[in-house]
Amino acid sequence: MIIVMKAGAEKKEKNEVLKRIRELGYKPHVIHGTTRDVIGAIGDERGKLVLQSIESMPGVESVVPILQPYKLASKEVKKEPSLVRISAAVTIGGREIVVMAGPCSVESESQIIDSAIAVKEAGAQVLRGGAFKPRTSPYSFQGLEEEGLKLLAKAREITGLPIVTEVVNPETAELVAEYADILQIGARNAQNFALLKKVGQLDRPVLLKRGMSMTIQEFLMSAEYVMSEGNQRVILCERGIRTFETATRNTLDLSAIPVLKEKTHLPVIADPSHGTGNHLYVAPMAYAAVAAGADGLMIEVHPDPERASSDGPQSLKPAKFAAMMAKLRLIAAAAERSL
Amino acid sequence: MIIVMKAGAEKKEKNEVLKRIRELGYKPHVIHGTTRDVIGAIGDERGKLVLQSIESMPGVESVVPILQPYKLASKEVKKEPSLVRISAAVTIGGREIVVMAGPCSVESESQIIDSAIAVKEAGAQVLRGGAFKPRTSPYSFQGLEEEGLKLLAKAREITGLPIVTEVVNPETAELVAEYADILQIGARNAQNFALLKKVGQLDRPVLLKRGMSMTIQEFLMSAEYVMSEGNQRVILCERGIRTFETATRNTLDLSAIPVLKEKTHLPVIADPSHGTGNHLYVAPMAYAAVAAGADGLMIEVHPDPERASSDGPQSLKPAKFAAMMAKLRLIAAAAERSL
Amino acid sequence: MIIVMKAGAEKKEKNEVLKRIRELGYKPHVIHGTTRDVIGAIGDERGKLVLQSIESMPGVESVVPILQPYKLASKEVKKEPSLVRISAAVTIGGREIVVMAGPCSVESESQIIDSAIAVKEAGAQVLRGGAFKPRTSPYSFQGLEEEGLKLLAKAREITGLPIVTEVVNPETAELVAEYADILQIGARNAQNFALLKKVGQLDRPVLLKRGMSMTIQEFLMSAEYVMSEGNQRVILCERGIRTFETATRNTLDLSAIPVLKEKTHLPVIADPSHGTGNHLYVAPMAYAAVAAGADGLMIEVHPDPERASSDGPQSLKPAKFAAMMAKLRLIAAAAERSL
Amino acid sequence: MIIVMKAGAEKKEKNEVLKRIRELGYKPHVIHGTTRDVIGAIGDERGKLVLQSIESMPGVESVVPILQPYKLASKEVKKEPSLVRISAAVTIGGREIVVMAGPCSVESESQIIDSAIAVKEAGAQVLRGGAFKPRTSPYSFQGLEEEGLKLLAKAREITGLPIVTEVVNPETAELVAEYADILQIGARNAQNFALLKKVGQLDRPVLLKRGMSMTIQEFLMSAEYVMSEGNQRVILCERGIRTFETATRNTLDLSAIPVLKEKTHLPVIADPSHGTGNHLYVAPMAYAAVAAGADGLMIEVHPDPERASSDGPQSLKPAKFAAMMAKLRLIAAAAERSL
Repeated sequence: MIIVMKAGAEKKEKNEVLKRIRELGYKPHVIHGTTRDVIGAIGDERGKLVLQSIESMPGVESVVPILQPYKLASKEVKKEPSLVRISAAVTIGGREIVVMAGPCSVESESQIIDSAIAVKEAGAQVLRGGAFKPRTSPYSFQGLEEEGLKLLAKAREITGLPIVTEVVNPETAELVAEYADILQIGARNAQNFALLKKVGQLDRPVLLKRGMSMTIQEFLMSAEYVMSEGNQRVILCERGIRTFETATRNTLDLSAIPVLKEKTHLPVIADPSHGTGNHLYVAPMAYAAVAAGADGLMIEVHPDPERASSDGPQSLKPAKFAAMMAKLRLIAAAAERSL
Repeated sequence: MIIVMKAGAEKKEKNEVLKRIRELGYKPHVIHGTTRDVIGAIGDERGKLVLQSIESMPGVESVVPILQPYKLASKEVKKEPSLVRISAAVTIGGREIVVMAGPCSVESESQIIDSAIAVKEAGAQVLRGGAFKPRTSPYSFQGLEEEGLKLLAKAREITGLPIVTEVVNPETAELVAEYADILQIGARNAQNFALLKKVGQLDRPVLLKRGMSMTIQEFLMSAEYVMSEGNQRVILCERGIRTFETATRNTLDLSAIPVLKEKTHLPVIADPSHGTGNHLYVAPMAYAAVAAGADGLMIEVHPDPERASSDGPQSLKPAKFAAMMAKLRLIAAAAERSL
Repeated sequence: MIIVMKAGAEKKEKNEVLKRIRELGYKPHVIHGTTRDVIGAIGDERGKLVLQSIESMPGVESVVPILQPYKLASKEVKKEPSLVRISAAVTIGGREIVVMAGPCSVESESQIIDSAIAVKEAGAQVLRGGAFKPRTSPYSFQGLEEEGLKLLAKAREITGLPIVTEVVNPETAELVAEYADILQIGARNAQNFALLKKVGQLDRPVLLKRGMSMTIQEFLMSAEYVMSEGNQRVILCERGIRTFETATRNTLDLSAIPVLKEKTHLPVIADPSHGTGNHLYVAPMAYAAVAAGADGLMIEVHPDPERASSDGPQSLKPAKFAAMMAKLRLIAAAAERSL
Repeated sequence: MIIVMKAGAEKKEKNEVLKRIRELGYKPHVIHGTTRDVIGAIGDERGKLVLQSIESMPGVESVVPILQPYKLASKEVKKEPSLVRISAAVTIGGREIVVMAGPCSVESESQIIDSAIAVKEAGAQVLRGGAFKPRTSPYSFQGLEEEGLKLLAKAREITGLPIVTEVVNPETAELVAEYADILQIGARNAQNFALLKKVGQLDRPVLLKRGMSMTIQEFLMSAEYVMSEGNQRVILCERGIRTFETATRNTLDLSAIPVLKEKTHLPVIADPSHGTGNHLYVAPMAYAAVAAGADGLMIEVHPDPERASSDGPQSLKPAKFAAMMAKLRLIAAAAERSL
């Protein structure tokens, strides 16, 4: 932490700050500037957040944090990229781009099995589908719940694809973990710390979506919550942030991919379906995500988007998805990745 | 819903849209414009969200929702303002401005009791204090949990002030409800639908904070979640939204107050402590909130902010809080309210 | 400036940074932390922006500016509030709240004169009205230009109210200055530096609107542009920033008022008409702005908003404006101001 | 336009709205819904903005625009993509990706000529360099002005590369046009309508950067300003929007590329240097932009970024730029483009 004193701070005020820094177990180091003093607080940084309270002391202008507040997620702790193993056949974070595809919600047996077969044929390695749905309206379809999980398991049996599905509640997390190969934490729960702790205690990889107004630092702090409970298998997913632009449902922040690759060893994927909210923009943004360095993609595919019970406008039909995958292979190869 | 067709949409495409509208149980009504057609879908609006999927049909440019998706929270359903009774002495939503004050976190018996006595003396009607704390870092102080609830109850016994405290998890909601007079849902859980449903089933008023990137419409949809489970006693709290500006911790959106007053019958309060993140700006924004029509305020007060275990920089000392309350009384009177 | 080195920065890299700091005329001061070094660069801060380029040197993690980049606008240079004199009768920045009111655009002689008489009767001290209009569409009404200026002058002659009107182009700035008492710089030109320099050379007070996505620091830098050319009579105007919220046209950032009061000696006013875009929300936000410490207001008033050639939805009718002014007087008094 | 009436609107209010629609020259068409009426206003849409003022009439809830307000920029007017010819050798908007590279500012003869030779060797087709610099601080380097233009011309003479440079003022626009092959409008001037009109009258292609808080619709309206003055040769440039995220200087909105391709025939390029503000992220975002469908790129290259007088942290060294170009060729080929 760097404590910036006001230009006219009195000596007494400065002494109080120095005293308080020492009380908190840090060593103060003063730089006398031309117009004001700046004080560095040296010591173990993990507890440094308490230094923030110094901001309310008289004579202090601001307190500037220097270090990132996450540890386990940081590249400083683990330099080489983490490989997250999903199944015997699928691992995320290596050379291979992993595509997770399927409908937004599980709606019926035929819908999820048809989807699973179609996305597998086109080259997807993981099946997605929501059984518990966090919907903004209490009057919208809330998912088939356990019945949906059973249908996902059936689709896995038939196709061999591992499945990713969302967990919305600590109370049902274990139930979901009985069926799912990857536990998804949705954007709206990205700072539901009770839920993050819970999935941190389960033996399943966690796909953590970025919250709609989450900074990259906060995103990594949420990953840290899961990891600090013992579960190191976290996959980060950029899925669009909220901005003033309304031409797309969210603004897919693809620069988050190289930024995350600079700061963390965890694999990073992108979700252009939620990121754009419009099936017309999914394929170009999928290509772009892979070109930017994403380790995988999450894509909504529905056999009949016009009749989907949720997120129809952003879902691809199977034929369009297959065409996208064909072009994606070329982009992946140009980016020295495989698919 | 209004379905806007593309300029060059074919007759066949339009017929498919008309057919689909009828299938979904609505009555289509076509307006032939000079460059394109626009189709209104008439019928019971509650299920209209499924019409959104028409956006992915060929020939369709966009689907524009006309109605608000909330019902119970809407002024169209209930015109007169709702009064939410907290205790024999305290009701929110009427002429009287209700001030909820106290520390961010309950830290110790003396801290919470001293705070309670101080805020009561200055005129606050409700005591706030966190026992379960949703912190962005897993390494930060997470609250005293049930011990904190017991200390809050003790402070209530001594001062008579009802207490408001946060619920972070459906699993511990009932425990919190045993102690608290008002259940607070924090900004990070504002779209944690499992939690919203849970507090909707409990017999306690709910203080719902606006999520950091929540539109006013989504805010009212979260209130609707609570209300649709049977609990009509919802208090809305504007606490700042996330914007590009970094001079304040969040951007307190005071225009949300008159907008909410236009759209809903529920009481609305403001939290200038979280909204600004800086004790210097709390009092002016508290005055402004009341002038804008707020029914109450939530203010962080700490006997020793420089030693607070959370949110020190935005906490007022008791003497400053008392001075603020004195001036607030004048503003309230000018705004034809009492305090 | 504080230069934060990477955790594993090599000695050679650090030496290069120290050398570069000295080359630029600053004195480096190293703090050895537990995991990394931090280097302060001490010296005259005006040119410190060039230090930013050190961020691209090997071994450097980030460069953190410590000082505000503005001088003339800063309270560190001038502690007491600036009074900006508009006319013999009107000065902004003192105890009196100054209200500038009138139509968005000057449309006709009767419209501007009726407006001027009406706003004066209700207690406004300055007449606003646009002659050169910056419209987002080239097909929208662009203003009456010089004819509009002449009509404004006529309205001033009749009512005695000084006039504020917008300058959109360095080429026509002198023409506008011949007629106007205050030169307004609109939000879309808030970083049009050629225009800022031009009005900095003219002998008229400048009303500078905050740009839609301008931080408070950038806002003060734009004021600094005007002041550094010699014109110290700058009035700052908060008029709403762009956020994700669409219930209001912009998000009026009232916390900018106490923040600006903390950082600058310049007077600060608010424009709730553009800030909200809806006549229903203008009065509550006007009260709130004054309660928050604003020195004045800018309000759109139109005799016939339904027929206004621009910004009808946010304009008040004269009777509503008069009612607002009556209540505003009470709020001003409670805030120890007069009107 | 669609006018949505309030649920309880009176017959008299509705009649007033119908009358007003007819007065404005449109034909009203009423849809009677189950809870409220909706009125379509049919007619020539160009002047429809005046219909917006109906929003302030009693009984009206909202006015919803249906049509895009731009014409010349729209794909509805011109379906095939526009090719913008820069020189005999360079055309933007076709199969070939056009890369514009060079330093942020022209600083000296050797700097610009070395840069020009380096970027040409690496495959860039256009030289960029600022002579008039819009800087947020009046105390920062403001550019070499005409001297800078002469140096750019010299670099063109030596390398044959056409040059793009910024215009900041209508007064100096013609001077810049004497030297430049492409006139750049910077982000801060993207709604400086006086400047847009001016370059619309000059016979030079215009590179229009998206404003920091500009929606895609507003971006196209600014293009429309240029085009409505007669200059159809407009190139759009996505350069990052302002969001809450601070890990990058701006948030490069790559989804704007496919959205613009859907709405306009104009070519679209991306500027990952300003978009990210960090040289580490420039190459991945350049690859991503081309994969997303960009017609070109603008990249800052500086022989000595640590000594650059502006934007050092985001500039690439020539060797890094050459490496990026090599990989970009592979991505372009995979995207069925050439470079």
